[in-house]
Amino acid sequence: MGGGFGDPHRRFNPLINEWVLVSPHRAKRPWQGQNETVAFETLPEYDPECYLCAGNVRANGMVNPAYEDCFVFENDFAALKQDEIAFEENVKDTFFKAKPERGISRVVCFSPKHNLTLPEMSVKGIENIIHTWQMEYTSLGKIDYINHVQIFENKGSIMGCSNPHPHGQIWAQSSLPTSVEKTQNNLKAYYDKHGSNLLQDYLQEELRLNERIVIENDHFVALVPFWAIWPFETMIISKRHILKITDFTAAETYAFATILKQLTTKYDNLFKTSFPYSSGIHQAPTDGELHPEWQFHMHFYPPLLRSASVKKFMVGYEMLGESQRDITPEKSVEILKSQSEVHYQQLDT
Amino acid sequence: MGGGFGDPHRRFNPLINEWVLVSPHRAKRPWQGQNETVAFETLPEYDPECYLCAGNVRANGMVNPAYEDCFVFENDFAALKQDEIAFEENVKDTFFKAKPERGISRVVCFSPKHNLTLPEMSVKGIENIIHTWQMEYTSLGKIDYINHVQIFENKGSIMGCSNPHPHGQIWAQSSLPTSVEKTQNNLKAYYDKHGSNLLQDYLQEELRLNERIVIENDHFVALVPFWAIWPFETMIISKRHILKITDFTAAETYAFATILKQLTTKYDNLFKTSFPYSSGIHQAPTDGELHPEWQFHMHFYPPLLRSASVKKFMVGYEMLGESQRDITPEKSVEILKSQSEVHYQQLDT
Ligand SMILES: O=P(O)(O)O[C@H]1O[C@H](CO)[C@@H](O)[C@H](O)[C@H]1O
Ligand SMILES: O=P(O)(O)O[C@H]1O[C@H](CO)[C@@H](O)[C@H](O)[C@H]1O
Repeated sequence: MGGGFGDPHRRFNPLINEWVLVSPHRAKRPWQGQNETVAFETLPEYDPECYLCAGNVRANGMVNPAYEDCFVFENDFAALKQDEIAFEENVKDTFFKAKPERGISRVVCFSPKHNLTLPEMSVKGIENIIHTWQMEYTSLGKIDYINHVQIFENKGSIMGCSNPHPHGQIWAQSSLPTSVEKTQNNLKAYYDKHGSNLLQDYLQEELRLNERIVIENDHFVALVPFWAIWPFETMIISKRHILKITDFTAAETYAFATILKQLTTKYDNLFKTSFPYSSGIHQAPTDGELHPEWQFHMHFYPPLLRSASVKKFMVGYEMLGESQRDITPEKSVEILKSQSEVHYQQLDT
Repeated sequence: MGGGFGDPHRRFNPLINEWVLVSPHRAKRPWQGQNETVAFETLPEYDPECYLCAGNVRANGMVNPAYEDCFVFENDFAALKQDEIAFEENVKDTFFKAKPERGISRVVCFSPKHNLTLPEMSVKGIENIIHTWQMEYTSLGKIDYINHVQIFENKGSIMGCSNPHPHGQIWAQSSLPTSVEKTQNNLKAYYDKHGSNLLQDYLQEELRLNERIVIENDHFVALVPFWAIWPFETMIISKRHILKITDFTAAETYAFATILKQLTTKYDNLFKTSFPYSSGIHQAPTDGELHPEWQFHMHFYPPLLRSASVKKFMVGYEMLGESQRDITPEKSVEILKSQSEVHYQQLDT
């Protein structure tokens, strides 16, 4: 590949067929913009005001059970509805193309403890979350009109998360969402051409080069993709060609829980803060097809750039032109690798 | 088209070939998330600390002239560099595709007055900005290796803008940025098929339906696109088929300045705040080709949803799945239309 990555260049993301502008020298500019408020208060293990804590009443009057590990419920303010909608589709119209969308939106509480975030949980606790995701993928996927199950987490108020209680969401729906469809098309084109999986082949190359690997264990690798957009964006890929989360062996579930704990711990240690991000799983849709082109992987999109209070803004140029980053993926790997796998809060006590 | 838009549905954006999920009922959910800090301080007309004010010294030691309307200078911390970079392109590689990028990044001060925002400027003052944009498009476009000139503005600290002094930016570069290339491909496909311009044909339909028009004058229309993503997203389109900003007649320049003032005034009046947004112009590239498929238009992407302090977060589902909105474009039009074209600050005094 040669060097030269110290100057402005563009890199190509084969998963979505898009470029990113990399401006490595720009990280040096002084910051004069908005600082985020960082919450340093210590949270209680139980908060009587929290609508996710066990035993509490939610806005709609329902009472949360006295749950012990994970607890799943239907989102009280869901973006999707289960009703079959009588609505005249006009998908043939060029300018006013629209179609009804059916779906189910769920909230997954990761733990009854209000103040326990992913990196602070035990590997056992994270295995419980993975089992919950597996059960949800299976049961939602079985529903006739559900063709895609999007598992994700918004962490931190800076990511629009309205409650610090550890939780994620699942939006299951009839259509493939835009990004998933793009990824599927590219995986499919690669599979049809090479007879192998794009991400598996990519992973082999990354393991050989060993320039962008953050963590590796027997079954999973966490790396900063060559085409990463966010300053500390990462992706977790399984070493085995796995289509979906329900294909995990017991050893893989354990290894995935372990790498999740390690990666999120490094994230927290980076700026000594509960590191905000949106994360989510991309995997085979539940449309009843085989999908050998798919490969299970998990994306982490964290917004912070320089400190707990300075984020990267994806605004003007990024919205109108293309994504732009100020630090090379290789530099980010170096920084993430050097972080301890012991959480800074645990070191303090 | 029929009704039915009160229930979850997806709409299609023919400019970029992507869908957006619309969840109209969701606007009713109570807000428990992060509130933005709103700056209510009155700014001085001249700030000795501001690096954009006339006569002041910038970080690199350069002194701003005593400018009287617009002032353009090279960005001191540019994301692009003019140097020709010796860098081995590997555009054939599947996984590690990269190429050097050359460009020029400029800052455009809209006025020497530190506290004068676009809606508060005179139409004459805005015409000066348009003339500056025209000159920059021409002079940058003439440079051999510059094939695209992106004119944009980030307004407000919530949009990563580090200085309230009224200003925009121009990033000119050798490649077509990702979003522009997508739009060009779709405009081109439409033009090849119909022999006409996609946005011109769309505008005719919108004028006929009169359901999403916010402002109309002799030469321009400001509307909320059928496929808008942001709560109060708008687009300004010229009524005449114009490829680029340098094609404006004098009457069109005046009409464009007028509609810019009216639209941004309505924005400010909406939540009685200096309304944040990223805006930018999409127009024909400067690659020396004719580009009859192009149509000059300007996008406004404002993040606010419910008030001066509550924005829409494009996070988890939006990053992994697809963009999602909580209020229909038709409802947004209704709200924007009902706003006065007299600025609330001027009403107060
Ligand atoms: O150039 P500025 O105003 O310092 O920076 C702002 O606009 C740029 C262009 O959209 C973005 O890349 C930056 O993240 C943002 O903070
Ligand atoms: O569902 P929540 O946590 O209330 O809301 C958050 O996540 C959603 C899914 O990414 C977004 O649509 C919202 O803008 C965000 O505030």
